[in-house]
Amino acid sequence: MSPITSPERGFPTSEYKQRAARAQTMMKASGLSALLLTTEPEVRYFTGYLTRFWESPTRPWFLIVPASGDPVAVIPSIGAALMGKTWITDIRTWSAPDLVDDGVSLLADTLLEICGDGGSIGMPSGHETHVRMPYDDITRLKALVSKNAITGDAGIMRALRMVKSELEIAKIRYACQIAGRAFARVGEIAGAGVPLDQVFRRFQGLCLEEGADWVPYLAGGAGPDGYADVISPATPDPLLPGDILMLDTGLVWDGYFCDFDRNFAIGPPSYAAKAAQARLMEAVQAGADAARPGARASDIFHAMDKIVTGGAGGSEAGRLGHGLGMQLTEWPSFIAGDDTVLEEGMVLTLEPGIDVAPGRILVHEEDIVITAGAPEFLSPRASADLPIL
Amino acid sequence: MSPITSPERGFPTSEYKQRAARAQTMMKASGLSALLLTTEPEVRYFTGYLTRFWESPTRPWFLIVPASGDPVAVIPSIGAALMGKTWITDIRTWSAPDLVDDGVSLLADTLLEICGDGGSIGMPSGHETHVRMPYDDITRLKALVSKNAITGDAGIMRALRMVKSELEIAKIRYACQIAGRAFARVGEIAGAGVPLDQVFRRFQGLCLEEGADWVPYLAGGAGPDGYADVISPATPDPLLPGDILMLDTGLVWDGYFCDFDRNFAIGPPSYAAKAAQARLMEAVQAGADAARPGARASDIFHAMDKIVTGGAGGSEAGRLGHGLGMQLTEWPSFIAGDDTVLEEGMVLTLEPGIDVAPGRILVHEEDIVITAGAPEFLSPRASADLPIL
Repeated sequence: MSPITSPERGFPTSEYKQRAARAQTMMKASGLSALLLTTEPEVRYFTGYLTRFWESPTRPWFLIVPASGDPVAVIPSIGAALMGKTWITDIRTWSAPDLVDDGVSLLADTLLEICGDGGSIGMPSGHETHVRMPYDDITRLKALVSKNAITGDAGIMRALRMVKSELEIAKIRYACQIAGRAFARVGEIAGAGVPLDQVFRRFQGLCLEEGADWVPYLAGGAGPDGYADVISPATPDPLLPGDILMLDTGLVWDGYFCDFDRNFAIGPPSYAAKAAQARLMEAVQAGADAARPGARASDIFHAMDKIVTGGAGGSEAGRLGHGLGMQLTEWPSFIAGDDTVLEEGMVLTLEPGIDVAPGRILVHEEDIVITAGAPEFLSPRASADLPIL
Repeated sequence: MSPITSPERGFPTSEYKQRAARAQTMMKASGLSALLLTTEPEVRYFTGYLTRFWESPTRPWFLIVPASGDPVAVIPSIGAALMGKTWITDIRTWSAPDLVDDGVSLLADTLLEICGDGGSIGMPSGHETHVRMPYDDITRLKALVSKNAITGDAGIMRALRMVKSELEIAKIRYACQIAGRAFARVGEIAGAGVPLDQVFRRFQGLCLEEGADWVPYLAGGAGPDGYADVISPATPDPLLPGDILMLDTGLVWDGYFCDFDRNFAIGPPSYAAKAAQARLMEAVQAGADAARPGARASDIFHAMDKIVTGGAGGSEAGRLGHGLGMQLTEWPSFIAGDDTVLEEGMVLTLEPGIDVAPGRILVHEEDIVITAGAPEFLSPRASADLPIL
């Protein structure tokens, strides 16, 4: 593992301008006169507006990307100071919350000013998206801009965000390195007799000590030779000899996630657990071997599924990996039904799972970036041998 | 501060049944044949389904509360094992993600089975809500259940969640105690010369050490006599003598938040800072004095605003406190325009802010619960004197 060198925080304005220009090229091709964005990653992608304040569901936030010119922010006044530190200069605010008109008329006026009458306003509406504003306010907005059609975004946000820039990749790589160092220290905090919920707390502490800005995601499990699922919160049950402990973290550095896991044996692992771990490593290698520009997401699924199920077509988890970046999970999905063509710069997780016994699984996950040749592993690859605590 | 005694995790099934029964009484009055819920707190309110997996935006999750009978979960198969541990027995799953039909037809079939033709399906659509599923899928769902109207939820979720049960209050009280202990240890991690981003990391570590399950929210600021805003991420700038440091945390215990802040003086504070702190304490007291059953949210706003602005009507933050519970912020808002009548069992934050100098503010926040008499402070009240680090 290479030594940690922190990338610069933020992005140069040129990167945001390039993102807007690429969006505008696609908008032109799709006949859109504006993009209307409402979620944290969508707003941040074009502005760099980074705050944990989105945790509060109270206030809506809006960003408009016009067909030409710079994006326009329509936001609560509490965010004006921070948005003013970004490259965005056209910032329109209202005092939120306003129970009568929570930014909707200001947003409508701004859209009409930007689009005129008759333009199509694209709002992300496809898979893995949602609109972060009250449903009643969407209805009201549509009525206020009724000469303009509010449509989908023609997949523009998905297409833009799915391929990462070098600067974005550097942030994800750094987040992976932080998590790798935390995983290397699990022996300090976990072992037979330690309650699982204490392991979860202490592992989050390790992530912070190693440099995470915050830890939005930690899941895992523990049990004899494997665990029942990978999304349950921790119980106070102590780890026992023969257990396999899994920790899966999505920590954030400068707004970018890592997402990978590690399995640990509590005492010497059984033959079944060792065999499952080896099979998972084999599946990750098969996924990496298939992960080349031009391959389809479904190809990577089949390469891994062949090894973990013999080609049965997947498991309850529903997929064997996914995109990664400003969110813990992003497009595409490694499933049989996703024909997304891989491109250089896509950051992806390889996440095969395997049945060890009825109701017991092992899951392994690594993070990669697609390059012209073999993918680069952003996460420090796990050993084929289960580490023993 | 009372010693920490951990409440039990989870809720008895009887509490969930009472929640459903109350919802059904309101649904009957509003003529709704089902509630359709899509967000984490909405689903958890009726089921107890608690997982950090919602951090992944990929998969939609649905819960239907019928006019009579128990709620029905329509969820991705990856969640079946965990949902099966709750009191919910009717759990219908699909293998998500499915790019062609991500649960929409299964949801429509289930709604039609429950509601028949012609019933009204209520979906939360008002202030502080959003619908967590792709907009295209809402459109598709409406077409599939076209004999049923999909309408708002008549404010039912807001009314239910705004008043907390004793068991809910106990969880919030415990979260507040954890944060209180972490704040009491800030002297261990902060002082002149320590970079602010390191303070943020270490404070999250303290919250975990003191018993937080996770720390979804930390904001703050530092500067001479005050800070520019309260939502910016931390910079690497070192704390300097004369700075006021503010830390504002929303940590979670068993799915319930605290949300309060503390101000600290780096070295002896100026007269201006001391006066501002004293004024904030006075405002909190005025808010608490006004916070009685039957008072309106706007009354509490005016009581505090009179002290912090002389009655000017608020500031850029937009409000002087809010509800708190399963989310960092909930209804109501302490603003002039919110006439919500306070009731026993509402958990609220009193959060006055004051201008210390141009572009410099101090903000203080405490958490209370409305009782028959004076409110109970759930957060250990700050001293009128700024603690000096």
